[in-house]
Amino acid sequence: MQSAEIQIVPLPGLPEIAAGDDIAMAICQAIEATTVKPIAGDLFVVAHKIISKAEGRIVDLDSVNPSTTARNWAVESGKDPRLVELILSETRRVVRKGRGILIVETHHGLVCANAGVDVSNCPLGTALLLPRAPDNSARRLKHALDAAFGVPIGVIISDTFGRPWREGLVNVAIGVAGIGPLKDYRGQRDVFGRTLQASVLAVADELASAAELVMGKAERIPVAMIRGCDVGATGGAASELIRPPERDLFR
Amino acid sequence: MQSAEIQIVPLPGLPEIAAGDDIAMAICQAIEATTVKPIAGDLFVVAHKIISKAEGRIVDLDSVNPSTTARNWAVESGKDPRLVELILSETRRVVRKGRGILIVETHHGLVCANAGVDVSNCPLGTALLLPRAPDNSARRLKHALDAAFGVPIGVIISDTFGRPWREGLVNVAIGVAGIGPLKDYRGQRDVFGRTLQASVLAVADELASAAELVMGKAERIPVAMIRGCDVGATGGAASELIRPPERDLFR
Repeated sequence: MQSAEIQIVPLPGLPEIAAGDDIAMAICQAIEATTVKPIAGDLFVVAHKIISKAEGRIVDLDSVNPSTTARNWAVESGKDPRLVELILSETRRVVRKGRGILIVETHHGLVCANAGVDVSNCPLGTALLLPRAPDNSARRLKHALDAAFGVPIGVIISDTFGRPWREGLVNVAIGVAGIGPLKDYRGQRDVFGRTLQASVLAVADELASAAELVMGKAERIPVAMIRGCDVGATGGAASELIRPPERDLFR
Repeated sequence: MQSAEIQIVPLPGLPEIAAGDDIAMAICQAIEATTVKPIAGDLFVVAHKIISKAEGRIVDLDSVNPSTTARNWAVESGKDPRLVELILSETRRVVRKGRGILIVETHHGLVCANAGVDVSNCPLGTALLLPRAPDNSARRLKHALDAAFGVPIGVIISDTFGRPWREGLVNVAIGVAGIGPLKDYRGQRDVFGRTLQASVLAVADELASAAELVMGKAERIPVAMIRGCDVGATGGAASELIRPPERDLFR
């Protein structure tokens, strides 16, 4: 293969994560069991689930007291009313409601199904919320990995989102550290000398999607390493990927 | 690195493509100049632009006679009225219009800006349309590459699309052959034994996004090879990625 190639490497062997666990240490131990030695610019894409679990963002459904609204929506959607209550508590604005699906804007500004509240891959009777501030979580993890590996590392925290008009979920970046989430080609010239318009690529989302290809849903590979992708060392935040209301044609 | 890793390899050295050119032969010649020897299951992600060019889907803007509607929308949007006319001719339904942006559903059912009509990376005074039937284009290319390399190859034809609510474009699959575009985890069990719901991944889109990371916009790398991703040999079509109206909350 060639030097310009990108490699996406699954990281097996992570233990089940619980509240208070040190994700950076878990990643370091899993890396030590492989032949991989992280180098400057390597990126770690981490499924938000293990971040949320480590941060204690797991809720016992029996502790949730559903409101009347939650009970009504639960009947409409066929969901557990306690789950609907949790979703509403994570919601800033309901975007669409129909056919058992609840698309909302979270307090972070993310637009996704069920405010990212999920019951899969977490203990029965519990539900997992998104990290409270995924960019901060990414930054903390980056600092710990930088120190552990002695080189600057990029971190992306990912979740799988649906999209309007298209079938299937794709992984997107909900938190980043140490990389620029957007790559701006505007002002560069194409092969015919014309200045490129409208060419800002959401590379952090593309990296998250690439990592999903080795993660799988049921196989407990919540971390992938990506090598060979130059996404700038200047840093940035996944919040830059959230379109501000004044630029949003779909509010 | 490990055996389960995925490699994304840019394919440099493709010539500028013109109407009637043989893309399969161009890819074979570019591959021969590298050390890469394709193996069964390798995927080629091909930017639609070279497919469209080879298929002669390039239009001289001077040959376009804009309608009154196109002229009015051109004033609203600040676009060339001939370009607006071309966009409307590729359009089945206008989804959103505002702030110089025209989001439409193409005759293929794809929802994207400007019906995929683009003026970048094509000669001045011309515009490029999407391939008329990208799944057919992918199938033809797959058959030619299968024969040339003597092993079954997957093909994805990609374009960069914007998304509601999120900044930046990402590469998606508009044509596929030799791969299943959706990976269905429903019915599988998570690590706690719970049956997975709502877990259909749009792997063809994720593969297209992964390939974009080595393609760049201005650097003329319209083809990338992906190795190590098991996406099934059963085949499928990118049309499966288009959500049918009855399942679409965003019509």
